[in-house]
Amino acid sequence: MELWVTERQTPTHAISMRSTATLESMQTPYQHLAVVDTEQWGRMLVLDGMVMTTERDEFVYHEMMVHPALSTHPHPRDVLVVGGGDGGVIREVLRHRSVQRAVLVEIDAEVLRVSQKHLPSIACALDDARVHVICGDGYAHIAEHRDAYDVILVDSTEPVGPAVSLFTKGFYQGIFEALRDDGLFVAQSDNPWFKADLIRTVTRDVAAIFPIMQLYTAHIPTYPSGLWTFTMGSKVHDPRAVDARHIAVQGTKYYAPSLHHAAFALPKFVADLVARDA
Amino acid sequence: MELWVTERQTPTHAISMRSTATLESMQTPYQHLAVVDTEQWGRMLVLDGMVMTTERDEFVYHEMMVHPALSTHPHPRDVLVVGGGDGGVIREVLRHRSVQRAVLVEIDAEVLRVSQKHLPSIACALDDARVHVICGDGYAHIAEHRDAYDVILVDSTEPVGPAVSLFTKGFYQGIFEALRDDGLFVAQSDNPWFKADLIRTVTRDVAAIFPIMQLYTAHIPTYPSGLWTFTMGSKVHDPRAVDARHIAVQGTKYYAPSLHHAAFALPKFVADLVARDA
Repeated sequence: MELWVTERQTPTHAISMRSTATLESMQTPYQHLAVVDTEQWGRMLVLDGMVMTTERDEFVYHEMMVHPALSTHPHPRDVLVVGGGDGGVIREVLRHRSVQRAVLVEIDAEVLRVSQKHLPSIACALDDARVHVICGDGYAHIAEHRDAYDVILVDSTEPVGPAVSLFTKGFYQGIFEALRDDGLFVAQSDNPWFKADLIRTVTRDVAAIFPIMQLYTAHIPTYPSGLWTFTMGSKVHDPRAVDARHIAVQGTKYYAPSLHHAAFALPKFVADLVARDA
Repeated sequence: MELWVTERQTPTHAISMRSTATLESMQTPYQHLAVVDTEQWGRMLVLDGMVMTTERDEFVYHEMMVHPALSTHPHPRDVLVVGGGDGGVIREVLRHRSVQRAVLVEIDAEVLRVSQKHLPSIACALDDARVHVICGDGYAHIAEHRDAYDVILVDSTEPVGPAVSLFTKGFYQGIFEALRDDGLFVAQSDNPWFKADLIRTVTRDVAAIFPIMQLYTAHIPTYPSGLWTFTMGSKVHDPRAVDARHIAVQGTKYYAPSLHHAAFALPKFVADLVARDA
């Protein structure tokens, strides 16, 4: 017998991975959560039937969520991660020596628990002394803080289920206020092949609040379409103005100084999605 | 009943697309050929069970096979396409006004026939007066020509079946000799997630023959892993030295002047595959 895990990325397009074991499969208060072993991608975390991260390709998403932002901010000390309970974003944040405090606000305690149990190569930094893990609502945490963070990273699921509020203009306004005067943020903003309207909305909403808005891409083979976008909003620092010669992140497998600016160079059909007045 | 077309991109990873009609399914002298209608990607050409091109995403592969090369050569007049019987590469070649003659050498007459019949938006340029279609062996054509072309584009299938000879050092040497003194070529060189060894071999072999060798990437959602590579070998002109302000290709949907240099900025794990001495 062969077991295959299938995700219908759209109603008419699916990816399937042959699986050797199911380690977790449960309904949490917020979503369905599964951990499976796959032959192609190693161990995999699945939320509401959607691939969240795999051992083999997780480095792309986690590095590209973090390093463009933390290489753009000249001295990030206090960093907030909303979501990201698997710990991969936190691991990458801690590569930046200027970071003194990394706060993680994950709504689902089960994501934290199973990641630390089954995905140690991803969750490995969650017990670092600089990390403060809060099991709670990221939207509320943002609303309760002002002028508190240098960088905020929104590592959410898709805008269904628990993450709906994280794709609203009110959330981006809250982020603006929770950031210091020269703060910046990044949110994952899905893919341009299947979710063009979402990218149009997010880029328009972020550009209406932040003086600087830039969309960038990374290639993530287990995510829908494989081409992922991230939206950066910044008060002062422009990611396009970074001198690549001064980027000094060690230990990455995808991000590199030469890739920093390349990530912001969009395929034409993606550039055409970005709000004109942005 | 639902019909899904599935390609096992590796023994343990597959993509599936829901299909509404099968227009062709035949064994040619060279390979199995099918044309199917899919809901997600429109009409699709499948060779030996592998997705070759779809109406919705074909522009990425065809533009990125052509425009980096034809924007690097300052005055491409004579262009050879090896393979590419669907006509998409030829269509993009003809966007460059300097081109006087575009020769297509496709081994499988059925690919030409079904593409013109079922994929007119891709094959539309095959009857242009500048195009010379030869139904024959690309390897032999290369061996019979010297100092004849400014640019050669190798739009082959995977290195199984009819395309095996197109991934050999002898073929690259033949290309070198078929090119003029300042000629250059591009070959598709598969993906870095599943075919790392192939990329190591191709980049090493091309770098051993051509003074300039550069690998670049494009994102193609229906190809294995979604991240595709192309290898350029050049006698004189360096794609990294192109002034993007002088690029003037019209009508593209993926390639853009700002993307020219970004395509050559490789993710670190891809850069690490490229031969060190290259």
